[in-house]
Amino acid sequence: MKDFKIIELKRSVFENNDKEAARIREYLKKDKTFLLNLMSSPGSGKTTTLLRTLEELKDKYKIAVMEADVDSDVDAHTISKAGVKAIQLHTGGMCHLDAGMTEQGLKEISYSDYDLVILENVGNLICTAGFDTGASKNVMILSVPEGGDKPLKYPLMFSISDVLIINKMDVIEHFDFDLEKVKEFALERNPNIKIFPISAKTGEGVAAWCEWLSNETDKWIE
Amino acid sequence: MKDFKIIELKRSVFENNDKEAARIREYLKKDKTFLLNLMSSPGSGKTTTLLRTLEELKDKYKIAVMEADVDSDVDAHTISKAGVKAIQLHTGGMCHLDAGMTEQGLKEISYSDYDLVILENVGNLICTAGFDTGASKNVMILSVPEGGDKPLKYPLMFSISDVLIINKMDVIEHFDFDLEKVKEFALERNPNIKIFPISAKTGEGVAAWCEWLSNETDKWIE
Repeated sequence: MKDFKIIELKRSVFENNDKEAARIREYLKKDKTFLLNLMSSPGSGKTTTLLRTLEELKDKYKIAVMEADVDSDVDAHTISKAGVKAIQLHTGGMCHLDAGMTEQGLKEISYSDYDLVILENVGNLICTAGFDTGASKNVMILSVPEGGDKPLKYPLMFSISDVLIINKMDVIEHFDFDLEKVKEFALERNPNIKIFPISAKTGEGVAAWCEWLSNETDKWIE
Repeated sequence: MKDFKIIELKRSVFENNDKEAARIREYLKKDKTFLLNLMSSPGSGKTTTLLRTLEELKDKYKIAVMEADVDSDVDAHTISKAGVKAIQLHTGGMCHLDAGMTEQGLKEISYSDYDLVILENVGNLICTAGFDTGASKNVMILSVPEGGDKPLKYPLMFSISDVLIINKMDVIEHFDFDLEKVKEFALERNPNIKIFPISAKTGEGVAAWCEWLSNETDKWIE
């Protein structure tokens, strides 16, 4: 018996995604729910980073997680075992969530019961960047093995993200990854981006990232 | 001065992508040009794998490379420095190539001058899988750091690929990656998929993969 629901998302009917996203953000602010949109390539460690984040913050905030995937439910299993409310959103082949699809998830979990809702978006550096979900903040993860040229190749993702988490720092010595150069490339794309190098595996750097998230959540729900 | 052209692709006007892809495949066969469609997540090592493949095969075949990217030209630079004809295709934000866009590239490089044309598709495990490019064969790369659950999460990519290259085998001891389990998952999705574990960095396993590609090219152009 699964202890999470699977929601088959419907295609959105809204013509203007930005307008819908702004509407969602407005009611989330009013109802004191911070929505974090977490994006990355497949395999950069979104779910492991999320588990570490939940460990740090689950006693401080009421948290729910919406796992978006094309059609599996691997991640919702993992998160619900960590003792946090989770639902799995199936995009039916779609490579991203838009505002309307995000809203279907928010309604399904009764978002206003939570201080912090985390959306783990579909693993994709291109399509997810093109659609505002209504999130309070956008966070992207780049992992060390993916290489340091990604800000050059996926500029939009770096431009629209408030935070860049650089994950898998524990293996940096085995890869040709110049941390300072990557920071420089990312800041060229987006001078306001906050950068947190972490290892979700060892826990290194996670506290600083969680402090940022906690501060932002406090500001949003105060 | 750049020694490769950059092509800004136009959106395709064709309504039936599969029909266009079949038409492309037919003239490629007639004109004796094998088209390989190489797909993966961002950062799995497509370009490095390609460099190794070119090293092995460039004296045997006339080879050209089409690099597709949202808007950078990092990869075409790298490939053209290896002494192989390269062009950079810009998708203008699109997350994949379809048959019509591939055809724009094929015409631009005068495909019939080559035995083997390799398309390095956009870094994306979802959208690229949904569009037949007209390629003779589809090959995907999964790299060890991405993790072994990918066949569960991106089923379509594994279903439509003729070959799965498992890259970055040189770092497997630093990651929780069960090679046998991944092979099993991949074969569940696609019992006909050929699997080649390699390290594009060290060259391990590259010969076996190139032998497959060489055999398939010979069969196509004979």
